[in-house]
Amino acid sequence: MNAPPETTVPSMMKAWVLGDPDDIKLVDKGVPVPGKAEALVRIDAVAICATDLEILTYGTPALIEGGPPFNKNFTPGHEYMGTIAALGPGVDEFSVGDRVTVEIHAGCGQCKRCRMGMYTSCHNYGKNYGDQDKGHRANGFTTNGGFAQYAVNNINTMIKVPDTMSDEEATLVVTAGTSMYGLTELGGLVAGESVVVIGPGPIGLLAVAVAKSLGASPVVLVGTRENRNRIGLELGADITIDARNEDVVARIMDLTGGKGADYVVDCAGSETTVNQAVHMTNRGGKICLAAFPKKPVEFDLGYLAVNNIYLYGIRGEGRSATHRAMAFMAEKRFDATKIHTHTFPMEDLPTALKYARERIDDAIKVVVSMKDSHAAADAASEGAV
Amino acid sequence: MNAPPETTVPSMMKAWVLGDPDDIKLVDKGVPVPGKAEALVRIDAVAICATDLEILTYGTPALIEGGPPFNKNFTPGHEYMGTIAALGPGVDEFSVGDRVTVEIHAGCGQCKRCRMGMYTSCHNYGKNYGDQDKGHRANGFTTNGGFAQYAVNNINTMIKVPDTMSDEEATLVVTAGTSMYGLTELGGLVAGESVVVIGPGPIGLLAVAVAKSLGASPVVLVGTRENRNRIGLELGADITIDARNEDVVARIMDLTGGKGADYVVDCAGSETTVNQAVHMTNRGGKICLAAFPKKPVEFDLGYLAVNNIYLYGIRGEGRSATHRAMAFMAEKRFDATKIHTHTFPMEDLPTALKYARERIDDAIKVVVSMKDSHAAADAASEGAV
Amino acid sequence: MNAPPETTVPSMMKAWVLGDPDDIKLVDKGVPVPGKAEALVRIDAVAICATDLEILTYGTPALIEGGPPFNKNFTPGHEYMGTIAALGPGVDEFSVGDRVTVEIHAGCGQCKRCRMGMYTSCHNYGKNYGDQDKGHRANGFTTNGGFAQYAVNNINTMIKVPDTMSDEEATLVVTAGTSMYGLTELGGLVAGESVVVIGPGPIGLLAVAVAKSLGASPVVLVGTRENRNRIGLELGADITIDARNEDVVARIMDLTGGKGADYVVDCAGSETTVNQAVHMTNRGGKICLAAFPKKPVEFDLGYLAVNNIYLYGIRGEGRSATHRAMAFMAEKRFDATKIHTHTFPMEDLPTALKYARERIDDAIKVVVSMKDSHAAADAASEGAV
Amino acid sequence: MNAPPETTVPSMMKAWVLGDPDDIKLVDKGVPVPGKAEALVRIDAVAICATDLEILTYGTPALIEGGPPFNKNFTPGHEYMGTIAALGPGVDEFSVGDRVTVEIHAGCGQCKRCRMGMYTSCHNYGKNYGDQDKGHRANGFTTNGGFAQYAVNNINTMIKVPDTMSDEEATLVVTAGTSMYGLTELGGLVAGESVVVIGPGPIGLLAVAVAKSLGASPVVLVGTRENRNRIGLELGADITIDARNEDVVARIMDLTGGKGADYVVDCAGSETTVNQAVHMTNRGGKICLAAFPKKPVEFDLGYLAVNNIYLYGIRGEGRSATHRAMAFMAEKRFDATKIHTHTFPMEDLPTALKYARERIDDAIKVVVSMKDSHAAADAASEGAV
Repeated sequence: MNAPPETTVPSMMKAWVLGDPDDIKLVDKGVPVPGKAEALVRIDAVAICATDLEILTYGTPALIEGGPPFNKNFTPGHEYMGTIAALGPGVDEFSVGDRVTVEIHAGCGQCKRCRMGMYTSCHNYGKNYGDQDKGHRANGFTTNGGFAQYAVNNINTMIKVPDTMSDEEATLVVTAGTSMYGLTELGGLVAGESVVVIGPGPIGLLAVAVAKSLGASPVVLVGTRENRNRIGLELGADITIDARNEDVVARIMDLTGGKGADYVVDCAGSETTVNQAVHMTNRGGKICLAAFPKKPVEFDLGYLAVNNIYLYGIRGEGRSATHRAMAFMAEKRFDATKIHTHTFPMEDLPTALKYARERIDDAIKVVVSMKDSHAAADAASEGAV
Repeated sequence: MNAPPETTVPSMMKAWVLGDPDDIKLVDKGVPVPGKAEALVRIDAVAICATDLEILTYGTPALIEGGPPFNKNFTPGHEYMGTIAALGPGVDEFSVGDRVTVEIHAGCGQCKRCRMGMYTSCHNYGKNYGDQDKGHRANGFTTNGGFAQYAVNNINTMIKVPDTMSDEEATLVVTAGTSMYGLTELGGLVAGESVVVIGPGPIGLLAVAVAKSLGASPVVLVGTRENRNRIGLELGADITIDARNEDVVARIMDLTGGKGADYVVDCAGSETTVNQAVHMTNRGGKICLAAFPKKPVEFDLGYLAVNNIYLYGIRGEGRSATHRAMAFMAEKRFDATKIHTHTFPMEDLPTALKYARERIDDAIKVVVSMKDSHAAADAASEGAV
Repeated sequence: MNAPPETTVPSMMKAWVLGDPDDIKLVDKGVPVPGKAEALVRIDAVAICATDLEILTYGTPALIEGGPPFNKNFTPGHEYMGTIAALGPGVDEFSVGDRVTVEIHAGCGQCKRCRMGMYTSCHNYGKNYGDQDKGHRANGFTTNGGFAQYAVNNINTMIKVPDTMSDEEATLVVTAGTSMYGLTELGGLVAGESVVVIGPGPIGLLAVAVAKSLGASPVVLVGTRENRNRIGLELGADITIDARNEDVVARIMDLTGGKGADYVVDCAGSETTVNQAVHMTNRGGKICLAAFPKKPVEFDLGYLAVNNIYLYGIRGEGRSATHRAMAFMAEKRFDATKIHTHTFPMEDLPTALKYARERIDDAIKVVVSMKDSHAAADAASEGAV
Repeated sequence: MNAPPETTVPSMMKAWVLGDPDDIKLVDKGVPVPGKAEALVRIDAVAICATDLEILTYGTPALIEGGPPFNKNFTPGHEYMGTIAALGPGVDEFSVGDRVTVEIHAGCGQCKRCRMGMYTSCHNYGKNYGDQDKGHRANGFTTNGGFAQYAVNNINTMIKVPDTMSDEEATLVVTAGTSMYGLTELGGLVAGESVVVIGPGPIGLLAVAVAKSLGASPVVLVGTRENRNRIGLELGADITIDARNEDVVARIMDLTGGKGADYVVDCAGSETTVNQAVHMTNRGGKICLAAFPKKPVEFDLGYLAVNNIYLYGIRGEGRSATHRAMAFMAEKRFDATKIHTHTFPMEDLPTALKYARERIDDAIKVVVSMKDSHAAADAASEGAV
């Protein structure tokens, strides 16, 4: 990083905030001040996640200040990266000017799960206000996020970005981290083991990449869209299965000598796929649910039980998995940018969201860049002098 | 054990064999000969498991010699104990005269799962005949079992019984071992953690006993029959919930400060209970399915996924759990005989099965004793001299 | 607890502070104020640990405010229990009036090890002051401890004490927690496994108790003092070995059929015992070092390597082990008070230390009670009104 | 594999056997017959390991048929690969004609450790003869090995070799498997973690390669020979340290911000390196001993204990690690042939051993090829017709 450390942080910034459901607007907002164990990040780029779309419409999975996130000046957005602009008291793990990417969950550090290192399962999730302030943060979910020029992050949620990685690629690290968390919970030692990934969305495609990086073989991707499966091949899949034209379970059985796969990562989460996942897993094998049905579905629990199959519902990007994902990405073991399809400037966030929601032009990952916005602010600031 | 080692093993024995479905008869059969790593067990007592009833009606979970187990001279029964009558070549781990109880699964030792120590998930389950003989044994399931005077056991499936333990109690060790396996897979370190057991059948009641032995607190038992719940209290439950009269999930939430239980062991396995299990587990908690629905059920996978809950379908009594169950029973940490309700002599097996199936006289565990049968055989043998 | 919540906390308290090495004096000191995630504990009793004696002479294992702990108004003492007198902002996990016992390490929550739940291995140990304040606390080591009327504790370090447990017994929970941590790191599933404990000091004797509670069998205690070994038998040892009169390794080999023990916990930590530990462990077995030689010793690493033995140097009472120790003690699985030999009032701390150091009158655990001191303060306070 | 399955297996073969210490001779010997769960391997290549040299001089680590291995017609050699020539009864996991490489340990399958999947820690190691036959095999150690034209292998010890891998490379898989086992026992999840490897012998160099494949960063290699360190760089080391010219511990501390490395793999095993390993490991870090001092050494156990460091003495290539090593090698993640320096024909084994022992011409891995020997035998056989 040759960029000189920033010396001035403005007091005001541009930020998108959520009004009524699906109503966002770009406003001027105070730049937040980092506290103990925190830093201020000048956001350079932010990717859009399917969860962002849900939050805009339905609200966040936890109450914010005791209620839903609407009309509270709340800024969503959680897959961002940027440059450290200021440090809170006592922070020496990072320096002003460091490029960082972020993960979401900062556990309270004092509940049963955080004591065990399970910070994405924090029992005080969402409690960071009022009389119940336990210090938990989940930027873009329960605290202000990344559709803004600046955000405050707990140092537990930041990872340095190497110079060789672009801003856009850096926004994808947390997605790869989620995939890595799933494979971690499945045991992590997947080299030479068969791994099936169902659902070639961003998490599924990067699950393919991460599984192959860890040495899994074969890595099989199951999808319904040919172009997505093709990207899966580029990211490391040995075999792809077109779920529209093949009996997925029969094909996996055929590929595995009739035994089934060692590990299955379901990134589609439909009634069909969760049952396929169970029926294609071998005795003693493991399944990770990285996506899930919105309501109860018919599910063959009996098959799971008689075959000693373990099923892991994962939440977020725990167990420092994002750091392991970054390690592979920093060494260029896979090219995550293959899932990055579109970039828009900050003021076009609504268009970016539309592309992501409607998969316009085969959009997979849509990234919003703040660079222009910062340049404009810098110019305005200089002009002011 | 002061009993002198037996010196003679008869060539013929009494054994129950399965004819057509639900048709068993007592026949004379050759006493089997133990091979390498095996011993011959003179069976002294055998308990009846719900699975025995299923096998009699529907057959075993694997083919025997390439087909269903009917009319093949097959002897069911898998929860037995006895006295070692003869040793196979090279066996010095046991001596003739040792009292032993058994577990079921003897893995092939050469598949992927057995290499990992997961012998109850053996990928060669049922393959012990013909061209495909991989040496797997599951007495009472795929090889001859314990409704007979003698059986051959792999030494991996035998545990010495202390003199202070009765024959009847010894037949219950494998049931406690199944409960212990479930708790083992949940992590094993349950001291001071909340454990809910749903379903006060034999495995559920002994899951209560094992959980309390391991220090779990509170241990909560959920059942629909008051007398079963009362036995649960005697075995270590701190709290029982009558599922007919209470909102089970609400009660658990109330008991756990609104967070849910750390561990849930479902030993009922109905559509109702599997969903209760999920909804009463706290974030980051774990569920063991020790019973399961026979067909697909509506199941709230989404709740499981968003709460980072892991679900373990367990098979048998793996990870040497039976040895740990025996360790607690040998030290009288709980009195498993509280679930032993009836005893019948060998020739009354059909009556014993009827009691077990119809829960006559509140039957829980029904045991068949072979002692009289052996005495008769010994008398006949002496008479023959 | 029926005691009414305390409503007033004095501003000043009595506290022992460390001057020059081995020079402590009783002074008046301000009562500390609990911050976020902290509570104020009115100390009712504190036990003396061998480490306290080391700290008085040599200082603490980390610098305090950048230097050694001498002449800094520092209060040692770390094995204490008491009653919550006040809560920091946002704390609702405890209530004023709760009886609690404490553990030592409050991790920073933001280093690599704390993220993994390894808070006793915090990489920011000792950093809780000045520009480097990472929030780590280790009361009695790097922050003020329990030889005082009051102390501030992070809520991660407190466990509720049941009414059925005396103050004295409650001071022993953290010692049992250290033993539990050792057994946890060895895998925790020790039921039916052979465990040898070397060294019948407080941690060793409670390691015997904890191992037996977890179902270990046999539990063998090796010591050089007959009266200590006798207490070991009362706490659950199946066998004791007098290290003065027996060849310890040969005896263990004899007890284990020539194979060696599954687990060894060395609580003596001499050159002799660490090598005995290695030589008595079976292939694939595990050793926990809960004590250690002060300087390098001749050690048979080759035997360890060729036998696939793993050696765990443990630090503190990690992985919530103290909670599991409390669970067993609350259920009276063992009587830890068998190692409590003497009690002194607060003002006699120097005498108490002398008894502990010189093992006067066979002292094992010496406890200092603050009850009289609080009564005096309360009386003085009332008089003042 | 296009090679047609072999249809004839000769009854006699050429094999090197051990006479007196360090005296080997090439003899005619009967071709062994595979039993249950076994196959006959026509050996195509065998690498020489430092342990082979030890065995020739001092004998094997276990008695063979009750005594030392000298003058018993015993064939050493354990790092071999070849082509399956015949199958034992019931074997369908492999086919005649399959190219396979081997690992060493075939556990008994019935001891405590094998039940846990710890087959390299088998408690019946060496027991495969006479009254105590437990079926354990360790070819080249306790059963006949690979300095011969044929050997019998348990199917647990064979892994298929892809067509894209040369014979010579395939002999190195078991070495990489040993390195992988070490990293597996350290936890396996080393991506982004600092790993130091001490000692650039074959296991050390492949530990570098395996650590980097798993994503470790940085991977640091410590050695005393520049050319070895250079090969380490080619295999994935980020940094090398010349132990002759640098203060190794100080350098590691400098590289890690004063904290020390997360993982250290000691493949040198001298008094100096084991202490360096401890002193360069960070709090809560882990050390694997893949080499070890032949006799007790001064070792700083205290540093290990106060820093919660765990030390893993590893034995062989357990936990299916060889399969994971093969997975990475099959995908060309690293080029193990960089450590292969010399090849000799079968009849020149003494010269090959001399090169390996004396490191003539910078020898690292010396391989003996059997191809010419088989061609000669085939020619002779045809001539015989």
